[in-house]
Amino acid sequence: MEKQGLLYEGKAKRIYETNQEDLLFVSYKDSATAFNGEKKAEITGKGRLNNEISTIIFEALKAKGIENHFVQRVSETEQIVKKVNIVPIEVVVRNVIAGSLSKRLGIEEGTAMKKPIVELYYKDDELGDPLINEDHVQLLEIATADQVETMKEMALKVNEVLLNHFVAAKVRLIDFKLEFGLTNEGILLLADEVSPDTCRLWDLNTNEKFDKDVFRRDIGSLTDAYEEILTRLGGNQYV
Amino acid sequence: MEKQGLLYEGKAKRIYETNQEDLLFVSYKDSATAFNGEKKAEITGKGRLNNEISTIIFEALKAKGIENHFVQRVSETEQIVKKVNIVPIEVVVRNVIAGSLSKRLGIEEGTAMKKPIVELYYKDDELGDPLINEDHVQLLEIATADQVETMKEMALKVNEVLLNHFVAAKVRLIDFKLEFGLTNEGILLLADEVSPDTCRLWDLNTNEKFDKDVFRRDIGSLTDAYEEILTRLGGNQYV
Ligand SMILES: Nc1ncnc2c1ncn2[C@@H]1O[C@H](COP(=O)(O)OP(=O)(O)O)[C@@H](O)[C@H]1O
Ligand SMILES: Nc1ncnc2c1ncn2[C@@H]1O[C@H](COP(=O)(O)OP(=O)(O)O)[C@@H](O)[C@H]1O
Ligand SMILES: [Mg+2]
Ligand SMILES: [Mg+2]
Repeated sequence: MEKQGLLYEGKAKRIYETNQEDLLFVSYKDSATAFNGEKKAEITGKGRLNNEISTIIFEALKAKGIENHFVQRVSETEQIVKKVNIVPIEVVVRNVIAGSLSKRLGIEEGTAMKKPIVELYYKDDELGDPLINEDHVQLLEIATADQVETMKEMALKVNEVLLNHFVAAKVRLIDFKLEFGLTNEGILLLADEVSPDTCRLWDLNTNEKFDKDVFRRDIGSLTDAYEEILTRLGGNQYV
Repeated sequence: MEKQGLLYEGKAKRIYETNQEDLLFVSYKDSATAFNGEKKAEITGKGRLNNEISTIIFEALKAKGIENHFVQRVSETEQIVKKVNIVPIEVVVRNVIAGSLSKRLGIEEGTAMKKPIVELYYKDDELGDPLINEDHVQLLEIATADQVETMKEMALKVNEVLLNHFVAAKVRLIDFKLEFGLTNEGILLLADEVSPDTCRLWDLNTNEKFDKDVFRRDIGSLTDAYEEILTRLGGNQYV
């Protein structure tokens, strides 16, 4: 597998073409951003940590039958994935009230929910990734009604698998964001990343935060937090 | 029918008990508010206009089989309605992009949509009436999934009836907000008001605005605009 030209660079990753048309190189960056890019920092080690955590999670999901883009981790900060056309919808699953939902509904952060809820956000940095509903998706013509239904079902299945996986690691899965994409054959695949950048992860007993909120809210060392998650997931075998 | 004590006062109406347990007196105020109460004015004649327009619309809806709380107009600014427990959800139907949707999705105001879309907002002034989805409704326990489905269906039916009714009056129905309530028997009824305060209404040919945006955006006389709607709807018979 040969890494070729840069396809695009996002806030957290660089995507490269490869000599195989349907595969990409993902290079996890050391950049941390929050509040739609308003807050920024370079944090040495972040790229490696997210690459390793994402690898563990994508493999765990695959083991439970959840198809995803992950193919292989190839270096400290790089993995090979299947190329997809990303559907510009961020699918968020929440088990416990936190962050923007706490503000939107005026419910205290940390309040557990009876059952998980799913939200759709329009992935558009200029618009600040606004909350949308299924009718907006149809209006924007960014996915079919069936595709949205499938993404929501897959997201809830991911939630079930990850809840168990994290509880075993003494971690409470508060919420997370997923991105899906379509292969050239029209198959919906879970894509992007699943990492402490895109999940809220609290200690099961103390509620200590081990995710990007540590950076957003300046409440500790991001790499310490992410290292803790990696260790608890049984990782760090490549260090 | 005897008007009794004030039950509550909102931004646009006062609600009074009556000597009949299941009926209320609604008194339309001359107050105009926008941006969640940040902009305010007293506009003589507004209460009368909205009371008359609301009367015409509720009667038109009833004639088309859409059950609603309206019973009878009893004075220039007052009407009798059936008492309900208001479901704190604002159901918005849109035919043309305008207002907050234009900002949310970055689509130019005035863009027509292929089919109407429905949005749910949590009716809570302190939170600024945030957009929500069906899962949020379940979380907040403010309506059952069936009730939401019924409200959405009724809202689309209202849209069909009003689109026709307004087109006949040479008015373009851009969007509108509905509130529903539950009677003591658990029946969902369309309630609150349907007026230029709660609809966007543009001239069919020139797109001139005849609704509260005239006040929100300081682009003319609110009473001139509302009088125009009343006249076009065949009203003003009580003047
Ligand atoms: N398998 C994939 N195929 C194509 N693009 C992908 C894949 N997985 C993720 N992407 C996209 O790669 C881009 C870079 O990721 P990231 O740095 O997280 O970007 P962003 O700044 O949009 O969050 C994103 O647009 C993401 O949607
Ligand atoms: N049939 C009804 N029974 C009980 N309450 C009603 C009915 N119709 C409307 N209401 C409520 O009357 C209140 C006053 O109306 P309004 O002045 O528009 O209030 P707001 O400031 O909340 O917009 C609102 O809370 C509205 O939901
Ligand atoms: Mg990203
Ligand atoms: Mg009102």
